[in-house]
Amino acid sequence: MPDRPRALFALDPHNLPLLFPPDVLARLRELADIDPALVVRDFEDPGIRDALAGAEFLVTGWGCPPITAPALERLPRLRAVLHTGGTVKGLIPGEGWRHDIVVTSAAAANALPVAEYTLAMILLMGKDVLTARDHYRATEAFPPNLVRADIGNVGRRVGIIGASRIGRRVIELLRPFDFDVVLHDPYVDEAGAAALGVRLSDFDALLASSAIVSVHAPATAETHHLIDAARLALLPDGAALINTARGSLVDTEALTRELVSGRIRAVLDVTEPEPLSAGSPLYRLPNVFLTPHVAGSLGNELRRLGVLMVEELRRIRSGAPPEHRVDLAQLEITA
Amino acid sequence: MPDRPRALFALDPHNLPLLFPPDVLARLRELADIDPALVVRDFEDPGIRDALAGAEFLVTGWGCPPITAPALERLPRLRAVLHTGGTVKGLIPGEGWRHDIVVTSAAAANALPVAEYTLAMILLMGKDVLTARDHYRATEAFPPNLVRADIGNVGRRVGIIGASRIGRRVIELLRPFDFDVVLHDPYVDEAGAAALGVRLSDFDALLASSAIVSVHAPATAETHHLIDAARLALLPDGAALINTARGSLVDTEALTRELVSGRIRAVLDVTEPEPLSAGSPLYRLPNVFLTPHVAGSLGNELRRLGVLMVEELRRIRSGAPPEHRVDLAQLEITA
Ligand SMILES: NC(=O)c1ccc[n+]([C@@H]2O[C@H](COP(=O)([O-])OP(=O)(O)OC[C@H]3O[C@@H](n4cnc5c(N)ncnc54)[C@H](O)[C@@H]3O)[C@@H](O)[C@H]2O)c1
Ligand SMILES: NC(=O)c1ccc[n+]([C@@H]2O[C@H](COP(=O)([O-])OP(=O)(O)OC[C@H]3O[C@@H](n4cnc5c(N)ncnc54)[C@H](O)[C@@H]3O)[C@@H](O)[C@H]2O)c1
Repeated sequence: MPDRPRALFALDPHNLPLLFPPDVLARLRELADIDPALVVRDFEDPGIRDALAGAEFLVTGWGCPPITAPALERLPRLRAVLHTGGTVKGLIPGEGWRHDIVVTSAAAANALPVAEYTLAMILLMGKDVLTARDHYRATEAFPPNLVRADIGNVGRRVGIIGASRIGRRVIELLRPFDFDVVLHDPYVDEAGAAALGVRLSDFDALLASSAIVSVHAPATAETHHLIDAARLALLPDGAALINTARGSLVDTEALTRELVSGRIRAVLDVTEPEPLSAGSPLYRLPNVFLTPHVAGSLGNELRRLGVLMVEELRRIRSGAPPEHRVDLAQLEITA
Repeated sequence: MPDRPRALFALDPHNLPLLFPPDVLARLRELADIDPALVVRDFEDPGIRDALAGAEFLVTGWGCPPITAPALERLPRLRAVLHTGGTVKGLIPGEGWRHDIVVTSAAAANALPVAEYTLAMILLMGKDVLTARDHYRATEAFPPNLVRADIGNVGRRVGIIGASRIGRRVIELLRPFDFDVVLHDPYVDEAGAAALGVRLSDFDALLASSAIVSVHAPATAETHHLIDAARLALLPDGAALINTARGSLVDTEALTRELVSGRIRAVLDVTEPEPLSAGSPLYRLPNVFLTPHVAGSLGNELRRLGVLMVEELRRIRSGAPPEHRVDLAQLEITA
């Protein structure tokens, strides 16, 4: 195929075989002239100057350095950045970007595993399975009070913060169950919520009435410490806060105080800082289920990100619009 | 309503307010003359002889003594046993039952939470979330190798043992995900499996090729130690066995050996014996997620069982067939 445009990988090479297993790589190479042995780690590397000069597409991913103005100068023929990661913040500079260059991201595919993790945690927190497990482990006896009125997954209110890609998928996945799902999202109106099959709620009312609150909004100036001490205080006793979004959305100190007191529960895949500071009580509290930022794509889940980019490239090459183009003007309210 | 038939509760009174919260109790009392303050614990209690003599319906549940032949003699007008629990084995004697008495059970409603627990565990085991959590807790550092090829929920084979009520619900709940679901069930044919959207598999082939195996068959003579040392040895390294059915389906000693060796992983909500014997390694192994028989209805999930029985009673009273009648001839292959 002599007419294949030239493309370059720019990502952590460790991830390449998972993002592009042999069959996916073969499909990519039908569409582009790309060498998996040449992976850009530094746009200033003189050894790859020619490769950069000829590249029409960059297939980026975690580990790609920012595509700064000087980098762009070395990429005069660049038509599109195909980003196998989620957010392109940090990759695409806020100023000086060439807006004729299409940027597309795999955030939609990366939403799936995060929503799966969230669903699993909602189901387990509703039944307080982790407390029952800890009790059984510690005492080698069945907990005395399994038939408590305050647990169970029937009719419980689940408050979703943000009808983001992930938030929407969570809402969809919650449909087969008997939860009462409410949404807070300043960018969604009543009609939008109805289309998702949920009720919109005032933020404070959502917090005060939900047994489980799951955070899915992006990290933006507006969402910094969105959940602060005052908002945490609104949560009912025993409520569970699930954060798979970004640590910066929650005031870690205030959250730690509430969790140390034992009043509420939490599932935290993200924190601020990350990892948590040494000796943080969050590492050991029985009412905290803490995971090291694993909700996103892991292992064979990276394949979906590669497949999505192959399909994007196919569309772009055939003259169709990409389906996952990043609207750079929207970065203030997106992940 | 002078024509309401007389009914009696026979169950652990602690559960009554959860099975029949005020609104459900009110619906029940529209259909039957039943006193929530009178709960049968012993059919031989002379103080309730008259109540038993007049009862047309027994609303039973966990904690109800077996309805033996002498008990039946005290219940001459009994038309139906409305069992808010799952299995009626142990409640209805194998011999000497009066087959004009309808027996109906809430196993269908009790299937829902077990399937929810199972789904959550499949999603977490596929990503090996629990290992990542333990590592983070123990070291206060992120695990070095999160991008491992051997984890992730894409295209992984999930082997379901038994298209029981619970097994079918799990199959249904797995549809929105990217699993490859196969089934072993000697009582389901190809057409039945196709209707469920899964492939039938030879039992040993299922074990040898599944990343996750979830057991949903009933405890019967045929399923005693169905999963023994030889069958466990078929599981691929790192595979996860989930048992929410009954401990007797798995050879605990053989399973303990495989788990102590670290070769496979397990999620066990049921074991044999239960609780496990004191000091069993299963209490503490990092590759075992052990819970104290909590997958079934807990807390507000008991409400569904009561609601189901109100609807059964409504059907029976209106002359319609009950939807959840237990086929006593099938007890050899059902839970
Ligand atoms: N844990 C992980 O591994 C992981 C993986 C991927 C994404 N994430 C995080 O998950 C979150 C969601 O990601 P996404 O790609 O679905 O986001 P997204 O870009 O789709 O979200 C944008 C939407 O969020 C909503 N939103 C914006 N501001 C809001 C506010 N102040 N309050 C409530 N809603 C608001 C709006 O509907 C907006 O359209 C982000 O924080 C992202 O960083 C985490
Ligand atoms: N952990 C809990 O809290 C909990 C709660 C409820 C039920 N359970 C258990 O879950 C299991 C399923 O319960 P259910 O009500 O869905 O069962 P069920 O009565 O609906 O199962 C019957 C079906 O199982 C299948 N089956 C029978 N023998 C089999 C065999 N040898 N191999 C494979 N499949 C076979 C057949 O399709 C049969 O129709 C049972 O063991 C039950 O005791 C556990």
